[in-house]
Amino acid sequence: MILVVALNPAVDVTHHVPGVDWAGVNRPAVIRARAGGKGLNVVRTLRAIGAEAQVVGLAGGSTGEEVRSALGDLGVPAAFTRISGDTRRTFAVVDTASGETALFNEPGPRVGQDEYADFCAMYEKALAGCRAVVLSGSLPPGLSSGTYAELAVMAGSAGVPAVLDTHGEALVRGAAAGPAIVKPNLAELEAVAGRSLSTARGADKVAVARAAHELRAAGPQAVVVTLGAGGLCAVTEDGAWHAVPSAEVRGNPTGAGDAVAAGLVHGLVLGRPWEERLRHAVALGTASVTAPVAGEFRNADYAEALAGVRVNRSEAG
Amino acid sequence: MILVVALNPAVDVTHHVPGVDWAGVNRPAVIRARAGGKGLNVVRTLRAIGAEAQVVGLAGGSTGEEVRSALGDLGVPAAFTRISGDTRRTFAVVDTASGETALFNEPGPRVGQDEYADFCAMYEKALAGCRAVVLSGSLPPGLSSGTYAELAVMAGSAGVPAVLDTHGEALVRGAAAGPAIVKPNLAELEAVAGRSLSTARGADKVAVARAAHELRAAGPQAVVVTLGAGGLCAVTEDGAWHAVPSAEVRGNPTGAGDAVAAGLVHGLVLGRPWEERLRHAVALGTASVTAPVAGEFRNADYAEALAGVRVNRSEAG
Repeated sequence: MILVVALNPAVDVTHHVPGVDWAGVNRPAVIRARAGGKGLNVVRTLRAIGAEAQVVGLAGGSTGEEVRSALGDLGVPAAFTRISGDTRRTFAVVDTASGETALFNEPGPRVGQDEYADFCAMYEKALAGCRAVVLSGSLPPGLSSGTYAELAVMAGSAGVPAVLDTHGEALVRGAAAGPAIVKPNLAELEAVAGRSLSTARGADKVAVARAAHELRAAGPQAVVVTLGAGGLCAVTEDGAWHAVPSAEVRGNPTGAGDAVAAGLVHGLVLGRPWEERLRHAVALGTASVTAPVAGEFRNADYAEALAGVRVNRSEAG
Repeated sequence: MILVVALNPAVDVTHHVPGVDWAGVNRPAVIRARAGGKGLNVVRTLRAIGAEAQVVGLAGGSTGEEVRSALGDLGVPAAFTRISGDTRRTFAVVDTASGETALFNEPGPRVGQDEYADFCAMYEKALAGCRAVVLSGSLPPGLSSGTYAELAVMAGSAGVPAVLDTHGEALVRGAAAGPAIVKPNLAELEAVAGRSLSTARGADKVAVARAAHELRAAGPQAVVVTLGAGGLCAVTEDGAWHAVPSAEVRGNPTGAGDAVAAGLVHGLVLGRPWEERLRHAVALGTASVTAPVAGEFRNADYAEALAGVRVNRSEAG
């Protein structure tokens, strides 16, 4: 069983509008509303590859009910601490004429210390039956940037390896708590490193590997950096790798990082060697980009992507 | 008791963003979510002026629960037929840098004939205890444009006068069913008349009165046209009037028409002469524009506006 933590889930609402009037009244042609957030995307991918998962998190209001209900529909066991604030929404306005998308991401409800304490008690119990935990996504207002570090320490005390996917100070402090894997993307790693790791043509893989080594030295057992179409750069206890998909794919990159996180934690639980973990993680990310909805993919795309991934040992760092 | 029909209520979500990036990620500074729609605005105004009101309508999903819960918080008796679709959302993005607002209005859930039949049974029972009914707002997909006509006929059979506030074919057919009052705005009356009723400086009051006479000839006992800052033009069984506020007010015009509808139905139930009904209706509309939120106003603004309204008999038509 893999435990997935969703401290700031969301109801994701998408409107498709052919030619948006940004100063007037629009009548969206297509409307989609779905429970989301990074944790839920990870869970959807885990379910799709047949891994057992359960969710713990924070939820409140009628939007919180939508999140609970979506996990019920997925058949995923979930327990949410009920909070007084309302679970957030995100709005995406897709202009189908221009192809541009505007995202409006609410920060989430303010979480009280008593609510967080209730969550921690539930989290500690849930850890007992699990073989790994995924700590993923933004923190809602009211929770300190040390929250993921605390949850990683609790996981460590329970003997449960943690995969951490967040950014900024929460990433820095969480990494120092010694999780099994941290999984920043390029921009998140650059922010932590305090310098650019890119050239005009994209990620500078040598510089990325060096920064990943530095981040690993701060605490985590492994650092896996997602580079979009450039694949993954991994610095681990067994060495460093680059894993790249066979060809660039077009599609919706939202949730591709979550599919990678799901692949990494699944490989960890299965005890796969790093080379295999990375192969599956890249393939899941690639298949996810091809699918129109975050956290979903076609098995045929997964199988095809898996056959095409190249994993090379890296000497950098 | 005044019955208010809400066939297509909404959860209105507003984001305030200082300088919107229409092709990127925005983090709204202020977020507001509130049950809305024209029917709910009418009810809020009725409650604010101390009139007894109850609501019947259609609601589904977690957004439908938000609507039920909001009416519970207001202390307004409400009964909604539970539908399989989800009650709609509206989304407003207020760019606090440019002052522009983009509105995204979902059309609403598709309503089945069995769901509408269940609603009608409930509506018929509710009519029995009421002295007037307000039929207000857009119709959700699946309901015919003759829906308000049917509901107006049922009200007539029960001896309950109806106030109809809608647009397009639903207004034309509803007007033919002989309600007590129809309340189009200028654009809605122009659409029904099939011609412009404006000059470069605004509404042509003589042309408006003529078109209101024509609409009245099609069935309703009275036609009251809202002209924004131009006040009201009324053509009734007791003659024609123009009622105008003392001065132009600035603010949020959303819901001003609903405040007018509330004033009209309240005056009807109280048996006020037309001149008084119009005076209160204009004052409520004016006070509503001054308030930041649809359906709310300050009593002092209402009293001040009431003192300033001028009502003149009109000879036009």
